[in-house]
Amino acid sequence: MFEKPLGMRDTLPFFYNQKSKARKSLTETILSFGYSFMDTPIMEYHDTVGKVSATLDQQLFKLLDQQGHTLVLRPDMTAPIARVAASQLKNTEFPLRLAYDGPVFRAQQTEGGKPAQFEQVGTELIGDHSSYGDAEVIALLVESLKQTGLEDFVITVGHIGYVKAFFSDLLGDDEDTTETLLNYLYRKNYVGYKEAVKALSVTAEKKNVLLQLLSLKGGGEIFESSRSLARNQLCMQAVNELKQLYRLLEQYKVAEYIHFDLNLISHMDYYTGILFEGYAPHLGAMLCNGGRYDTLLPSFQLNASATGFAIHLERLVEALDVKEDQDPRIGIIVDDDSYSEGVAKASKYRREGLSVLLQHVDQIPDVHAFQKDLARTVDLTKGGGERNE
Amino acid sequence: MFEKPLGMRDTLPFFYNQKSKARKSLTETILSFGYSFMDTPIMEYHDTVGKVSATLDQQLFKLLDQQGHTLVLRPDMTAPIARVAASQLKNTEFPLRLAYDGPVFRAQQTEGGKPAQFEQVGTELIGDHSSYGDAEVIALLVESLKQTGLEDFVITVGHIGYVKAFFSDLLGDDEDTTETLLNYLYRKNYVGYKEAVKALSVTAEKKNVLLQLLSLKGGGEIFESSRSLARNQLCMQAVNELKQLYRLLEQYKVAEYIHFDLNLISHMDYYTGILFEGYAPHLGAMLCNGGRYDTLLPSFQLNASATGFAIHLERLVEALDVKEDQDPRIGIIVDDDSYSEGVAKASKYRREGLSVLLQHVDQIPDVHAFQKDLARTVDLTKGGGERNE
Repeated sequence: MFEKPLGMRDTLPFFYNQKSKARKSLTETILSFGYSFMDTPIMEYHDTVGKVSATLDQQLFKLLDQQGHTLVLRPDMTAPIARVAASQLKNTEFPLRLAYDGPVFRAQQTEGGKPAQFEQVGTELIGDHSSYGDAEVIALLVESLKQTGLEDFVITVGHIGYVKAFFSDLLGDDEDTTETLLNYLYRKNYVGYKEAVKALSVTAEKKNVLLQLLSLKGGGEIFESSRSLARNQLCMQAVNELKQLYRLLEQYKVAEYIHFDLNLISHMDYYTGILFEGYAPHLGAMLCNGGRYDTLLPSFQLNASATGFAIHLERLVEALDVKEDQDPRIGIIVDDDSYSEGVAKASKYRREGLSVLLQHVDQIPDVHAFQKDLARTVDLTKGGGERNE
Repeated sequence: MFEKPLGMRDTLPFFYNQKSKARKSLTETILSFGYSFMDTPIMEYHDTVGKVSATLDQQLFKLLDQQGHTLVLRPDMTAPIARVAASQLKNTEFPLRLAYDGPVFRAQQTEGGKPAQFEQVGTELIGDHSSYGDAEVIALLVESLKQTGLEDFVITVGHIGYVKAFFSDLLGDDEDTTETLLNYLYRKNYVGYKEAVKALSVTAEKKNVLLQLLSLKGGGEIFESSRSLARNQLCMQAVNELKQLYRLLEQYKVAEYIHFDLNLISHMDYYTGILFEGYAPHLGAMLCNGGRYDTLLPSFQLNASATGFAIHLERLVEALDVKEDQDPRIGIIVDDDSYSEGVAKASKYRREGLSVLLQHVDQIPDVHAFQKDLARTVDLTKGGGERNE
């Protein structure tokens, strides 16, 4: 009778309020950067946005409608927004700055207990293929998180172009090995990566270089070692883009939150340039992520590049770890005789911006318990203390 | 490539902003009455909340998951909130004042073009079975609508107890005829009702009384005629409840928005007491509705009465009919040399609460068109006019 589908959760008032506060703060910061919020339906055709989404097919929440079509509960907002940008918005002025806030879905995993529905707040900058665009998106992400009150977090930034050129240089067209190694990095299984590298039939020198990739993590100081480790044009270009990005983020005064990681792979084949993931301590999962994806819009026949981020709102609230406040509500308890007075008093308080609960005493099972959680109670009943206040 | 499931719509920025404003205003008013917002999942089991929902079964958006369970996209928030009230919240202090804001769904109708997804903002007062509770809910509804800026609207209030006792008195246990007549009233097909009454094999006097039911619409003056038309105990009790309700709404100073209609039937068998529907002129559909439903919570094994309202947010925005404002955003156009200056200026404006779009000139296809919609542009490029402002 009380069962919910696997992975579906209720949001009770305390957590709802914390989400509201965080959402309001994020929204205000995003609006201050000139982004416009929009929304798309909860449900889409699998053939339309499901297939081009960054979410892996086995994680899509697929359903059959009564006509037998395969529908998906939207797994993210990026693909639906690309659909809109490439159709209804294609004649507006680019670059487009769009933002969103809403529930997204993942297929119910039988193991794990992960939520099947969660809320993402995010942005898409469409039609700006410069480092200035990348920097804006990351600066906005950092500002957005800071404004919610989150103090301790790090944005790890990588570049898919570096990783791909690095492997291509060392492994040539050995796609199976490349795929295997990328997969270890994608799963952040560094032990597995090391073992796989050691088992390769390549020169000891190459193995050494492949292993050194794991050490390319840190601040601006890693650009030099990243360049010298991978002496090819595409890797150098990627490093120079990251260096330029870092310089721009310093202008935004957010560089202290940035950590580079040249072996970061957030997705097997979605991002096309810089990419990033955000973490907060004590949070067992990724707080936010994003990057540049220049092939999504072309799949909707719009030749435009794009970059953006998405923040997992529930995890942000967990990271903020706010303790339950005193309930701010004032209770006014009335009986038949004091009802008019109660209505007038409640109305006056409400106009002053207070939250007031007006309650006839006859409907309260336990007056003492009823008052317990409220900030203050005004008892206007005959027996009450404040009849002539 | 751009197709969406039938009845699913995108919400572009202008409409999104109007919805945000209306939602914010509604939320603030509801909070000021001491209600706590909560949320439930988008998807539920058909067996759990689908079956007890006020939404007709053929209007439920049903889907099959990969295990073959029948799921529903929630058709309303009342049944899911009842589920939570009767489980996770059953040990908190009653009466409970809960509120919600979120998307709800209706099955794709092949005809009509109605939205399959829309947003409801609403409240539930659980555990208060008095007219004081009914009055609070209607007063809060009126205040909520007024605060959004809506001026011209009416809340039509009826009482299912009156209608049921009226027919029972006149038609006895002729359930088929009662069902037929109730159905005409439910569909607001008054011509059909009249014809059906004329065709009945009952006395001319009874026919006359049945026809007079249609005239029981108006302000407080209809109580007298309603009582004299149906001279039975249950009808009189319903009229007295409405009279008491009216008196309480006068205290709230919202009686001018109330219109009584003793043949109002919002649902065939959901409401158990007063019920209401809200309308605004030029809006071709119901703006909001609600009432008392005392049998829903018992179906979740909680012996509590409840009353509440739901506002159809998109329709409210249509009724408000706001014209598109000037875009409030300021654009700052920079080149490589003026980037630092632009970042600093944007940051300063944003701290002042302005919405600022910082854009590198190299990424703008058409600078003139780009500037067109913005409130103001500061051009910091070498060729721009404000380099040394």
